[in-house]
Amino acid sequence: MSKKVPNRILLTEDRIPKQWYNVRADMPEQHEPYLNPATMKPVALDDLTPIFAEELCKQEVTLERFIDIPEEVLDYYRMFRPSPMIRAYNLERLLDTPARIYYKYEGNNTSGSHKLNTAVAQVYYNKKQGIDSMTTETGAGQWGTALAMACAYFEVPLQVFMVRISYDQKPYRKEVMRTYGATVYASPSNKTDVGRAILAKDPHNTGSLGTAISEAIETALKTPNTRYSLGSVLNHVMLHQSIIGIESKIQLEMVDEYPDYVIGCAGGGSNLGGLMSSFMQDKLTGKANPHFIAVEPAACPSFTRGGYAYDFCDVGHITPLAKMYTLGSGFIPTSIHAGGLRYHGMSPTLSKLYHDGYLDEARAVGQKEVFEAAVLFAKHEAILPAPESSHAIKAAIDVALECKERGEAKTILFGLTGNGTFDLAAYESYNDGTMESYALSDEDIKKGLSTLPQI
Amino acid sequence: MSKKVPNRILLTEDRIPKQWYNVRADMPEQHEPYLNPATMKPVALDDLTPIFAEELCKQEVTLERFIDIPEEVLDYYRMFRPSPMIRAYNLERLLDTPARIYYKYEGNNTSGSHKLNTAVAQVYYNKKQGIDSMTTETGAGQWGTALAMACAYFEVPLQVFMVRISYDQKPYRKEVMRTYGATVYASPSNKTDVGRAILAKDPHNTGSLGTAISEAIETALKTPNTRYSLGSVLNHVMLHQSIIGIESKIQLEMVDEYPDYVIGCAGGGSNLGGLMSSFMQDKLTGKANPHFIAVEPAACPSFTRGGYAYDFCDVGHITPLAKMYTLGSGFIPTSIHAGGLRYHGMSPTLSKLYHDGYLDEARAVGQKEVFEAAVLFAKHEAILPAPESSHAIKAAIDVALECKERGEAKTILFGLTGNGTFDLAAYESYNDGTMESYALSDEDIKKGLSTLPQI
Repeated sequence: MSKKVPNRILLTEDRIPKQWYNVRADMPEQHEPYLNPATMKPVALDDLTPIFAEELCKQEVTLERFIDIPEEVLDYYRMFRPSPMIRAYNLERLLDTPARIYYKYEGNNTSGSHKLNTAVAQVYYNKKQGIDSMTTETGAGQWGTALAMACAYFEVPLQVFMVRISYDQKPYRKEVMRTYGATVYASPSNKTDVGRAILAKDPHNTGSLGTAISEAIETALKTPNTRYSLGSVLNHVMLHQSIIGIESKIQLEMVDEYPDYVIGCAGGGSNLGGLMSSFMQDKLTGKANPHFIAVEPAACPSFTRGGYAYDFCDVGHITPLAKMYTLGSGFIPTSIHAGGLRYHGMSPTLSKLYHDGYLDEARAVGQKEVFEAAVLFAKHEAILPAPESSHAIKAAIDVALECKERGEAKTILFGLTGNGTFDLAAYESYNDGTMESYALSDEDIKKGLSTLPQI
Repeated sequence: MSKKVPNRILLTEDRIPKQWYNVRADMPEQHEPYLNPATMKPVALDDLTPIFAEELCKQEVTLERFIDIPEEVLDYYRMFRPSPMIRAYNLERLLDTPARIYYKYEGNNTSGSHKLNTAVAQVYYNKKQGIDSMTTETGAGQWGTALAMACAYFEVPLQVFMVRISYDQKPYRKEVMRTYGATVYASPSNKTDVGRAILAKDPHNTGSLGTAISEAIETALKTPNTRYSLGSVLNHVMLHQSIIGIESKIQLEMVDEYPDYVIGCAGGGSNLGGLMSSFMQDKLTGKANPHFIAVEPAACPSFTRGGYAYDFCDVGHITPLAKMYTLGSGFIPTSIHAGGLRYHGMSPTLSKLYHDGYLDEARAVGQKEVFEAAVLFAKHEAILPAPESSHAIKAAIDVALECKERGEAKTILFGLTGNGTFDLAAYESYNDGTMESYALSDEDIKKGLSTLPQI
């Protein structure tokens, strides 16, 4: 390259993508259809529209390649996008690696993560349909915050069911949502049948995304003209998050780069799905062959130790079933700090891409090694990363060291999905030396998988 | 203007300012000299060098107009600067004002504020001098975090004395500093003579910036090869913060704008001093005549209700005396949430500019009206502002409404110094309706002023 790559590769507002990219348009095979939990037959559009806004249901099944981003959504995007692409010069120097490391930083907005990309779109479509109020679940709190921000902007009332462990660990996350006008409940709560049933069995249940999803859907179904919103897993979420990858490709092109590795943490899959988008398009259409790596916590390893099977997306078994990599809806993840990755399942589209070999690799990493990487990164790249994002940092460091071992000057792109300013309780336990590195026994895995439905 | 102004006016890295601007070079008169507290004679450079790194002492007194920013400092700046200039389209629409509102956003870095600008410079000069460790105070925690980040990067150990009220209200602020390797004490502490004396009289003393400063300086003086670092008030801090105003002027020029009003919150004065810099240069040299407004809390109104007098910069009376607007070093500010603005004094340079009529106006605003403005801003501009910064938001809204009243399409620039992600306890009290709007009686003011030294 003739000129030095800047630290931060900025895209001006006029180059903000005007369309989302739908990876399903280029997949040779689609994931198996969702099943209606009552009939075990493939769901029809009518099964979904009581839960989600109609336009989102259509996006869930469409095979159109590009979808126009509504002007109202772009108006909001322009307040925080395009997000920066950053060259990790200091990290490279520290690792003494010949690899060039880039990261797409989605944490520079008040929600603290990439979740705002789909939140704005989802609330817009609900508002446009004339929906009166919305419900959702949140794990680490980033999704709930993002949806609360979008709901405040479009003036749609919101109820959030927040996984109890996060509700307790992150009291201030709740307060941001309240500041943006949302009502927040700890889940399991006594507001729903699902919640009451769980609390009756186990009053100290710390909750899970699966449970919170059930509570939010139940509430949406029982409240007039109300719809539910999901922050990950589903195809319309992947669609909205494609903006990350589209921008990334443009930004890397600006400095004559193309990634050899694309690395993202994966909980429900929306971050990785978004980051991969344009690069996966290249792979599916034979234009390039980047190596994709999904990084998950060793404490919740759906890709690396789960089964590829039909399963419920929630604990209460209200949702349609999806064919996906899953640890079983009865799997209770340990209380690791990366709350956003504590989900038993995985995006059906990402699952299909992984199963068919397009998503090349999945790695599971332990909590303590993740925080080691996080603190190293914080000190030298001047950004305190979210625990979820730090899974990708850990893997990127490992890959950079592998490159060093082999003397290869590869280009690594990873997704820094969010900042860690609401994760200081987690950092505190790391700083105090009391953090545990959870590992799962084969028995734990078997127990979770035993809850898979027999189909 | 021919083309639409973008939401975010971004400056690419190659246009990052390479020099700081020293407003003192263009002032017709300088502020009165600092006085040595032991002799009450003007301080010499030798009086300051045991406290601050030598290069910073030189910058404190220099009248040179432009100072080169060292390459090592620029290397760090490039990780988070230039900061964005944002057009507040939604706020304008909401207020239905003919005014155009811009804000320079300094909160998009992990320290959460503009403080990082001077922290990096100060640690660099200490490191270059071969200093072994550093000390500082912090109020709201933004300064301590900024210095901890810079110290981590340059590998200089740091001890932070954190005002007890903030230490208690913001436990996670402390944790960020720890993550970046700093040792943090609640002030008043039992680590220093000053702290022990205060605690002996009042074990529940909630602390103040003035006390924390005394503790940090005492510690620096008693620890071998250690220096103290101050985050505001002093001339070298104003110098480093000038980068805010220099960038702002370039960014506004890019969209053919020049501010009629420049509005900043003022605690010690570093934010306002920085934001004003290039515009004040224009005013001092007769090139333009923007109207400058300093905004302070009604609970700590040094400009609007203080005296212009020689006073100690700290409670323990260790520091040199400065001629400044002050409420008296014995003034104990109420526990408002804008911890960064709870300081009895004010930058001597800003004080002089205010006294001589170049800094046109100061306004004091109440806590509850500030939070009303903050929440309005958060919902419509998608950024949760720090309580300190929200003082400027409140004043900018008022000025925009005054413009509406008069039908004037003025250009307003205000400084959004930081984000409020560590201020959720404050937002909680606002959301709960338990927040107080402190007002000071004449008696309170008189009591503070009675502690001014007789000179």
